[in-house]
Amino acid sequence: MATKLELPLVLTLRPFPFIPSFQAKFSNQFTTIKRSDLSLPLNEFLEKRLTAITKEILNCLPSLSCIVLTCTGLDHIDLDECKKRGISVCNTGTVYSEDVADFAVGLLIDVLRRISHADRYVRAGLWPVKGEFPLGSKLSGKRVGIVGLGSIGSEVAKRLKAFDCIISYTSRNKKPSVPFSYYTNVVDLASNNDVLILTCELNKETFHIINKEVITALGEKGVIINVGRGALIDEKEMVRCLVQGEIGGAGLDVFENEPHVPEELFELDNVVLAPHKAVLTHESFSDLHELLISNLEAFFSNKPLLSVVKYD
Amino acid sequence: MATKLELPLVLTLRPFPFIPSFQAKFSNQFTTIKRSDLSLPLNEFLEKRLTAITKEILNCLPSLSCIVLTCTGLDHIDLDECKKRGISVCNTGTVYSEDVADFAVGLLIDVLRRISHADRYVRAGLWPVKGEFPLGSKLSGKRVGIVGLGSIGSEVAKRLKAFDCIISYTSRNKKPSVPFSYYTNVVDLASNNDVLILTCELNKETFHIINKEVITALGEKGVIINVGRGALIDEKEMVRCLVQGEIGGAGLDVFENEPHVPEELFELDNVVLAPHKAVLTHESFSDLHELLISNLEAFFSNKPLLSVVKYD
Repeated sequence: MATKLELPLVLTLRPFPFIPSFQAKFSNQFTTIKRSDLSLPLNEFLEKRLTAITKEILNCLPSLSCIVLTCTGLDHIDLDECKKRGISVCNTGTVYSEDVADFAVGLLIDVLRRISHADRYVRAGLWPVKGEFPLGSKLSGKRVGIVGLGSIGSEVAKRLKAFDCIISYTSRNKKPSVPFSYYTNVVDLASNNDVLILTCELNKETFHIINKEVITALGEKGVIINVGRGALIDEKEMVRCLVQGEIGGAGLDVFENEPHVPEELFELDNVVLAPHKAVLTHESFSDLHELLISNLEAFFSNKPLLSVVKYD
Repeated sequence: MATKLELPLVLTLRPFPFIPSFQAKFSNQFTTIKRSDLSLPLNEFLEKRLTAITKEILNCLPSLSCIVLTCTGLDHIDLDECKKRGISVCNTGTVYSEDVADFAVGLLIDVLRRISHADRYVRAGLWPVKGEFPLGSKLSGKRVGIVGLGSIGSEVAKRLKAFDCIISYTSRNKKPSVPFSYYTNVVDLASNNDVLILTCELNKETFHIINKEVITALGEKGVIINVGRGALIDEKEMVRCLVQGEIGGAGLDVFENEPHVPEELFELDNVVLAPHKAVLTHESFSDLHELLISNLEAFFSNKPLLSVVKYD
């Protein structure tokens, strides 16, 4: 084994590994520097600014040649700047795709069939008192539009096909190998579907892609499921539409200003709210550790990275 | 059109149609007698005893030749007695199968991924205060054992295959055309699975089919989903195992003593509770009306019934 000093240097800006059983595998291969090991001004600077990897932060880390993320989304990374500097960026690839897709389907069934509402109803002891609980709406056969048919969207489609849902999608480009109807824009997608599921990434083009026009097109029985990013939706407008009954319901794992969730939603029975947990299970968390370490091993031995972000 | 008196007689023991838009179609074809139209002693007798169709009740209705049910389960019908008297019995056939299967999958995702728990957590305003919400367990790839691979169980299997779950089942007989592993008994099924989903009917053989031995075989990470009947499970034993952590979780739409739900369950975050609503949505309710009326039309014109119960 190499001595500690010969091991490649990894700066861990967040504690890693999160799972103790990966500790030995990690520390036997890499010398880790924590943020607190850095010079005090640099540590303080990073602490304040570390919500995004900006040009400013890259300027502080001149030897940086690879960034390994614990998330899939890249909205907080200045990719142009990374490209210019020849820095490789690895995201989590498809590690979370199945879990996010499972969660999206769970949210959808929950909203349509009122499962969380039913659970509250039973726990509050209302069943023997009030009797009949309101009927839900059927999932099987519903028309579902997927916004962004990438790795997660494709997993959602695969699952919902087994419920005999009619799938269509919008994305930057039509995907030739996909059997689902393609819409060039999200308004047309909304007009022709009962449900919209957001699985696309957040970027300048997709910021507030779900706006008043789209919500109106989806209609008063329509349901929105968001497992992407909060800012894909004009949240204020969606909350207004939910409160005023201009839309049928929503299943939301993400919000514009997390961990803050608009309190108007707490009173509604046609919404299901989750604290940004679609991506993670015990199983995917363990897979994430494997992937992160494998990416680092590959990087330091000049092998191809496992989940590298391709620059445009 | 036939005059009112010439129309065939239908005794509606529960109000029907439930959906007003079916009223004309129904009353144009049949003369309905409500329970309150019967002689007072007969009405009072039926009111007290009408939790089941017993020999006693059949004795009161000597002209009865067809029973049309609004449910799938037959545990409350004396089928031997109906057979003896040449009474045809129609249940709801497969009208509810898709909805029940959707709900079963919804309950399973909800339990594994803690969706109702997450919803409570967010609504209680705990996300900004407590921060991290506990991780759930992955659905994709789980081993799922189905107890009773009839119409509902088959729909569940079809859906969960799309989540890459590994499906096996137990039922009275091995089904030659089915690609899933078959277990001759539920203990072996439980030993070899992460999840049990109960979709079988309740009868003498299946009463308390999920007992202490089965729960122990399923193990402390195991999950039980019940969309069949409450008495399929020894509820007292299941509650004890849930409270003491001897089983991983449960999603329950049915209970032994509805509408009463054991209050110990109200405190648990690894259970999801629903008020016997897996069967019904707006859509299936409408389909049910179509089916009931079509069965009556068929009966009175001597055509084959659409969803007749076959006697052994």
